[in-house]
Amino acid sequence: MSTFRSIEWKNDRLVLIDQRYLPEKTIYIELKTVDEVAKAIKEMIVRGAPAIGVAAAYGIVLCAQRLSENDDLVKELQKADDLLRSSRPTAVNLFWALDRMKKIWQEFNGSPDDLKTILEKEAVNIEHEDVQINKQIAKNGAQLVPNNAKIIHHCNTGSLATVDYGTALGVIRYAHEIGKKIHVFLDETRPRLQGARLSAWEMKELGIPHTIIVDGASGLVMKKFKIDLVLVGADRIAANGDTANKIGTYNLAIVAKYHNVPFYVVAPTSTIDLKTLTGEDIPIEERDANEIRHIGDTWVAPQKSPVFNPAFDVTPAELIRGIVTEKGIVYPPFKENLRKLFETT
Amino acid sequence: MSTFRSIEWKNDRLVLIDQRYLPEKTIYIELKTVDEVAKAIKEMIVRGAPAIGVAAAYGIVLCAQRLSENDDLVKELQKADDLLRSSRPTAVNLFWALDRMKKIWQEFNGSPDDLKTILEKEAVNIEHEDVQINKQIAKNGAQLVPNNAKIIHHCNTGSLATVDYGTALGVIRYAHEIGKKIHVFLDETRPRLQGARLSAWEMKELGIPHTIIVDGASGLVMKKFKIDLVLVGADRIAANGDTANKIGTYNLAIVAKYHNVPFYVVAPTSTIDLKTLTGEDIPIEERDANEIRHIGDTWVAPQKSPVFNPAFDVTPAELIRGIVTEKGIVYPPFKENLRKLFETT
Repeated sequence: MSTFRSIEWKNDRLVLIDQRYLPEKTIYIELKTVDEVAKAIKEMIVRGAPAIGVAAAYGIVLCAQRLSENDDLVKELQKADDLLRSSRPTAVNLFWALDRMKKIWQEFNGSPDDLKTILEKEAVNIEHEDVQINKQIAKNGAQLVPNNAKIIHHCNTGSLATVDYGTALGVIRYAHEIGKKIHVFLDETRPRLQGARLSAWEMKELGIPHTIIVDGASGLVMKKFKIDLVLVGADRIAANGDTANKIGTYNLAIVAKYHNVPFYVVAPTSTIDLKTLTGEDIPIEERDANEIRHIGDTWVAPQKSPVFNPAFDVTPAELIRGIVTEKGIVYPPFKENLRKLFETT
Repeated sequence: MSTFRSIEWKNDRLVLIDQRYLPEKTIYIELKTVDEVAKAIKEMIVRGAPAIGVAAAYGIVLCAQRLSENDDLVKELQKADDLLRSSRPTAVNLFWALDRMKKIWQEFNGSPDDLKTILEKEAVNIEHEDVQINKQIAKNGAQLVPNNAKIIHHCNTGSLATVDYGTALGVIRYAHEIGKKIHVFLDETRPRLQGARLSAWEMKELGIPHTIIVDGASGLVMKKFKIDLVLVGADRIAANGDTANKIGTYNLAIVAKYHNVPFYVVAPTSTIDLKTLTGEDIPIEERDANEIRHIGDTWVAPQKSPVFNPAFDVTPAELIRGIVTEKGIVYPPFKENLRKLFETT
């Protein structure tokens, strides 16, 4: 386990590490209402597809806990559900977790107190499952990592993006733990710099050799250092394998293809959305221009310069060598093999 | 002409706009010694291959002006020449300008005062030629720009990177001036953010429609907005067409190739170095890790995180559709056609 917890449930409060201030400051915040949870997701106090899903589940619990006998339970929970669903549009784990919670409160017809208990239990399940799933993903993915591997990684997919352990960084962590020699090049990942701020911090804590690079340097790094593979996470994987992930992933995949470096997506099956047929159907969130125009207190562009700030891009399936899940590694043809993954459950 | 001058010679002082503080502050600094000029190049107070060449030429003039009768002229000028050559290794314009100056002081055998005068004249020539050359480049390049063009541009190649007008941004500027409708997407260009800080500022001053993007978003932008062409500058073009330019250019070129977007390099012939046979032979400067680890007063990575910070990368000739120079547009085969460019002079 890590020395920190990105998400912790304390009976009636959700405690989050405020990821906006890492690595400079480690600040924990306590959330007591669903509004606070929705705001925390929107403002990226908590981020990473799996972590967002768990936070949203607890958002529903917080809503239920604060309801009184006089409230219309279903109406209030529906409002909370709507609010959380509107917080960020791209990562499907958010909707997946809310679907699990909704199934319970929609089908339940016992007492309000019992509903609160059973919703809390489901959220705790989602949380605990995430850690187990990550560890299984890591074991499955580690077989792709040769000894002395040089890996490029984008954004943050470690403990901070999940409940604990991580997805793509979980594979790297597990390979390190079982004694493989590894060096990971971390894309700093503009604009929010999750690679430099969060992944570098996690790698340092875990003692995994790493080097930060700017996103534009991955091509040079592939040429100069003979990279073995690229590992990234995912925010939504469409039925045909097209994968939405942090902006910059698509460029990295193209650059990997050009250098014949295998490019793998690492994600739990909860990130696979068979209802989304192709990448074209994935909504891409656009975020505030100031994420690009200033950093800390420094303006790095004229204050009113026009900016296009998509939070994610879509990597087409043709650029993806394989998708590592807790149920195994899925290879092309993705449309067929991703579907099979769910049939064999 | 622009409302600002990146470089201005005032008889015995070189006045530079300190590009480290743009766009927040417009600060001019006056340099009176060759040591100050070398430092200004090293610290990127002045940057951009053509601008560095001109600044270095004036560095030699400043050295000559401060020599007394008792000094060994040749020895002192050689020291100044060595110092300036060591300031930045990649951009060849620096060496090209110093070669022009050196030819004069090596072959000269008149009085010291005459030497000072003739060196100053040569530096002024290099400065004035740069503006004329840029304008010719711009005219040659504008034929590549269709009306309603959408263009992606990397780093800064405008008035700030040259004496005035610019290379790749000069083409965009000229196309705008002759009435073509244009929209330019500006890669912010990590780590030094020349695109966001400098190019966006120049485009704003010139009234050219533009949008800042993070470097990792160029693939999504090509897909979403149907980009017509990519225009970049160059720091050194090898005899076979391989081109060193700001880090991130290589990734952009690969991404352009994947989308079948024509990728053009725009540079004066002084950037072409026939003595450098291929990109493999171009020295790539590595800069301080803190350029990546902090921005303004904000640490965006753990303070001692390992960083790899190459200032440039090399785009192989196979990814380049054409090279726009003041002598015309050069197309493949570059090895043959770049050589011809110099033969026909």
